[in-house]
Amino acid sequence: MANIVITYHSVNHHTEAVALEVAKGAEAAGASVIVHNIENPVERLWSDLAAADCIIFGSPTYMGDVSATFKKFAEETSKQWFTQAWAGKLAAGFTNSGNPAGDKLATLQSMSILAAQHGMLWVNCGVMPSVYTGDGQNLNRFGHYLGLATQSANGPVSETNPAEEDRATARAFGAHVAAATARWSAGRTNLSSAA
Amino acid sequence: MANIVITYHSVNHHTEAVALEVAKGAEAAGASVIVHNIENPVERLWSDLAAADCIIFGSPTYMGDVSATFKKFAEETSKQWFTQAWAGKLAAGFTNSGNPAGDKLATLQSMSILAAQHGMLWVNCGVMPSVYTGDGQNLNRFGHYLGLATQSANGPVSETNPAEEDRATARAFGAHVAAATARWSAGRTNLSSAA
Amino acid sequence: MANIVITYHSVNHHTEAVALEVAKGAEAAGASVIVHNIENPVERLWSDLAAADCIIFGSPTYMGDVSATFKKFAEETSKQWFTQAWAGKLAAGFTNSGNPAGDKLATLQSMSILAAQHGMLWVNCGVMPSVYTGDGQNLNRFGHYLGLATQSANGPVSETNPAEEDRATARAFGAHVAAATARWSAGRTNLSSAA
Amino acid sequence: MANIVITYHSVNHHTEAVALEVAKGAEAAGASVIVHNIENPVERLWSDLAAADCIIFGSPTYMGDVSATFKKFAEETSKQWFTQAWAGKLAAGFTNSGNPAGDKLATLQSMSILAAQHGMLWVNCGVMPSVYTGDGQNLNRFGHYLGLATQSANGPVSETNPAEEDRATARAFGAHVAAATARWSAGRTNLSSAA
Repeated sequence: MANIVITYHSVNHHTEAVALEVAKGAEAAGASVIVHNIENPVERLWSDLAAADCIIFGSPTYMGDVSATFKKFAEETSKQWFTQAWAGKLAAGFTNSGNPAGDKLATLQSMSILAAQHGMLWVNCGVMPSVYTGDGQNLNRFGHYLGLATQSANGPVSETNPAEEDRATARAFGAHVAAATARWSAGRTNLSSAA
Repeated sequence: MANIVITYHSVNHHTEAVALEVAKGAEAAGASVIVHNIENPVERLWSDLAAADCIIFGSPTYMGDVSATFKKFAEETSKQWFTQAWAGKLAAGFTNSGNPAGDKLATLQSMSILAAQHGMLWVNCGVMPSVYTGDGQNLNRFGHYLGLATQSANGPVSETNPAEEDRATARAFGAHVAAATARWSAGRTNLSSAA
Repeated sequence: MANIVITYHSVNHHTEAVALEVAKGAEAAGASVIVHNIENPVERLWSDLAAADCIIFGSPTYMGDVSATFKKFAEETSKQWFTQAWAGKLAAGFTNSGNPAGDKLATLQSMSILAAQHGMLWVNCGVMPSVYTGDGQNLNRFGHYLGLATQSANGPVSETNPAEEDRATARAFGAHVAAATARWSAGRTNLSSAA
Repeated sequence: MANIVITYHSVNHHTEAVALEVAKGAEAAGASVIVHNIENPVERLWSDLAAADCIIFGSPTYMGDVSATFKKFAEETSKQWFTQAWAGKLAAGFTNSGNPAGDKLATLQSMSILAAQHGMLWVNCGVMPSVYTGDGQNLNRFGHYLGLATQSANGPVSETNPAEEDRATARAFGAHVAAATARWSAGRTNLSSAA
């Protein structure tokens, strides 16, 4: 079974809401998902990460990059980087901010470089903008590809903040990552049994 | 068998030399490799790309980005992008220039975004710098991770230009991409046979 | 007087429409502006660029980066790069595509690195999103900062495609660049007279 | 007089050594320079920043981006961003790491986007690689342009770690930023006296 860990940072619960939708989409696609808020890491965070087939990074975009709290987590992974303990895992990323673009691509670039440093393969957003597919769902309405990028309004998180179209994109992204992880895991098994 | 197509642009044969080393490394790791210079595309380029399990992009870094000729190729793939014909393939990238850094990361970022637009998973460089592993081979001597980045001196291409340490890194990168492609392909087979 | 040259690439006139709005804004702010479509360069392009206090780059975003035609122009500037003939000029950039985000940040990053290679100072977008200023004009509605990023719909260019809010942002960006260029030019004069 | 504040983060004094060389170069070029280590901010940090004509950002590159401590500082500037209190200042950046490239470009990109969000103009590295100028000093030996990028070895900071060639590049970068700041400041004075 595809084993996914979502590690996100969220202060005002907006990015957290996205994380939960990603988890929902991945679980619906058959993955086993564990969600960790790295603001308050629990002891099993690192063992969960070690056991993951795929790690999904989540962070708000603050001042044009990942949050400082996310970056602190990234630096704590330098132990795993040094031994390349995560090499061969899949990675993917999502970010949320108050603007449609808002330099969110820079956050996704930072996450994709972090993944590359770890030797992890990078899974893209995987959701074509509805403007091209004509599916009427307004998915990926801003046109980000490197990962998932959503928007929330100021004010409390609610069922409509982030908006349903972004929540649906998050679920589709979660399903996409789950499918990639299942295939990647099956590949290991298959190659092993062939050996 | 892992089916890899390398599409590169090279004017003065330096990037071409790297492409051939990548191919060598991938073939030695068991992959079937086809190499295309997109400067003079032949008719079967597009059918080869369609059949590939993994596409490796190669371009010199000129003025801080992929070459115009490579970018022209990238734009010609907009047909495949629109139908997401390449979604689910693997992708990786390499670049060569006259400086150790020389903004080569920007070229790799451009390639990784191109891959994400196509829905392709991005395979990293996969070669830890020798400075950390102590293997004495001076591999990945500049510390690039998102893809392979090599350096050549002005003057004609030769066995020592690009240098052997960068050629060895290119072969290790090729082997890394081949292993990822083999696993990814086996995963598809395995999931299919399970269905 | 601030002497600005806008060099843009445009196939379907959408990016051209933005270029003309940028020129309008810069001229209204007192600058002298020359506009060149680099698709069909005229002979005086290079002498105009040599005489410019500020060069504004414009390109559509195609497949997540500057267009191949723009990149070809960038490579032709390698002569100026080698002698650093443009060092000390100002530079700024704009891009247009069919999506709100659409990886336009990557295009602006490519342009800002090109400018840095030339030793040119990079002028930002300079237009705060209306969502923060409450000016009711819906300026910089996507939240890009490194440069100007606008959106156009498929179909012919018209007074409302790109939309008036993006055209107004383009004029404000032009005025911002003109003011920076005036100050930068005045600084040279002042330092000279002090010498 | 050009009024420059350098705000850097440094744990093991390597990036600090670079900061001090940048300051030396800027002072030799006539600038007034204040240096702040943001690891332990003192009370006058924010008033110094408010009074600066130019702010130079400095951070090690950790895991492919600015350090978490630097990012925390960047987030604390969101007050200044919201009121655009720093708009019209100059900005520049430098970074240090253990590898020649080591994804340092990503750190400089993050800093340049931060500057753009603040409405600050971005000053480039301004030091052509010696490999092109033939000055025999081995300046800018890795070929970075967006800002200053230096390398240090593991082990304690010393006169030769970072190496003298990188220290010389740092001083040249400092002088370059000082000259740009002097011109930019003179421009304000000149425009004012013309009004």
